[in-house]
Amino acid sequence: MVNKTGNNMAGKFIVIEGLEGAGKSTAHQCVVDVLKELGIDDVVFTREPGGTPLAEKLRYLIKHETEEPVTDKAELLMLYAARIQLVENVIKPALAQGKWVVGDRHDMSSQAYQGGGRQLEQRLLQSLKETILGDFEPDLTLYLDIDPAVGLARARGRGELDRIEQQNLDFFHRTRARYLALVKDNPKAVIINAEQPVEQVKADIQSAVKNWWISLSR
Amino acid sequence: MVNKTGNNMAGKFIVIEGLEGAGKSTAHQCVVDVLKELGIDDVVFTREPGGTPLAEKLRYLIKHETEEPVTDKAELLMLYAARIQLVENVIKPALAQGKWVVGDRHDMSSQAYQGGGRQLEQRLLQSLKETILGDFEPDLTLYLDIDPAVGLARARGRGELDRIEQQNLDFFHRTRARYLALVKDNPKAVIINAEQPVEQVKADIQSAVKNWWISLSR
Repeated sequence: MVNKTGNNMAGKFIVIEGLEGAGKSTAHQCVVDVLKELGIDDVVFTREPGGTPLAEKLRYLIKHETEEPVTDKAELLMLYAARIQLVENVIKPALAQGKWVVGDRHDMSSQAYQGGGRQLEQRLLQSLKETILGDFEPDLTLYLDIDPAVGLARARGRGELDRIEQQNLDFFHRTRARYLALVKDNPKAVIINAEQPVEQVKADIQSAVKNWWISLSR
Repeated sequence: MVNKTGNNMAGKFIVIEGLEGAGKSTAHQCVVDVLKELGIDDVVFTREPGGTPLAEKLRYLIKHETEEPVTDKAELLMLYAARIQLVENVIKPALAQGKWVVGDRHDMSSQAYQGGGRQLEQRLLQSLKETILGDFEPDLTLYLDIDPAVGLARARGRGELDRIEQQNLDFFHRTRARYLALVKDNPKAVIINAEQPVEQVKADIQSAVKNWWISLSR
């Protein structure tokens, strides 16, 4: 695909990550707007878990199973089952056609929530990532950082919380700490301070995407 | 639990494995009858995938998802999600109460069908087994060996085939070959020739269970 800047560029995969109430929907729209400005109109939106017929059914089980306790390992395995369906049946085909994909959550969520929040062992998380996803990863991850108490208050204002959102505050503090550690180690991830006024958050997202875009053309 | 032979024995987990049409239901009844003869009345029956509310929902998705192609990896992950629910919420609690559990399929099915039949890489299968199940394994596995053509003809006689049963004959030949290799390497597994007349199959199962029982009391 030849875009306005003259780059000959295949599709890219941008992911928005963050805790509940961090502002992922607003960030998504902001990314779509910046991409449009950069000449990219054909953007596919995905959300995880979900985004395919089977993955949406798994999403429902993950979030709303109440007939029995869901083990942490089963939760993680269902998340990966949904993820590989989305990657193989939606994301990779879209990228191959030169489309861009903007995802609401991807693998970093499992690393942060199930690794940090649930405290599942690193060996399990690492081996699932490697054996299921291989070297597939986002080209850019925007992590919206927010204090869990602030984010959860926002999320609660939107209505009923699902099974995962009902965890205690410690769970989300561990999740945030793992997010921060992951972003620090990932050269393709950028941290956005999501506690700022929304216009400043948007400005930071725009800068992050544009700076990354410029680095691509170098 | 003190049984008729005077052994002080906790619950044990016996698994019946084999291709479609190998006669697993008949074998199950036969095992229950032998256990009764040995003084064990309190037997829990499990089937995989399934056996818990969530695992049964996953079973349905695994066998009947038609809205999109199910990737081999997602199938495997859903099988393990169902399995760990069954192990943690049903099998381990039953064994801890001194009950015996007789399972229609367990982990060897995934190793044979997804490893042999689907040809998923060994590294993935091995790491899932290790990280999800740890050292949990059946005390005895009875593998009912049958030529796939014979077994499938029987299974077809029973009615409509599900998504996995609709695979071609090569798939089942690879699955059988993997089963045979796994049983050969597993000192806790016994091969039963399931192509024999049903009375002979039952006699072989009885001998296998009784010989194993005697070995336990040594």
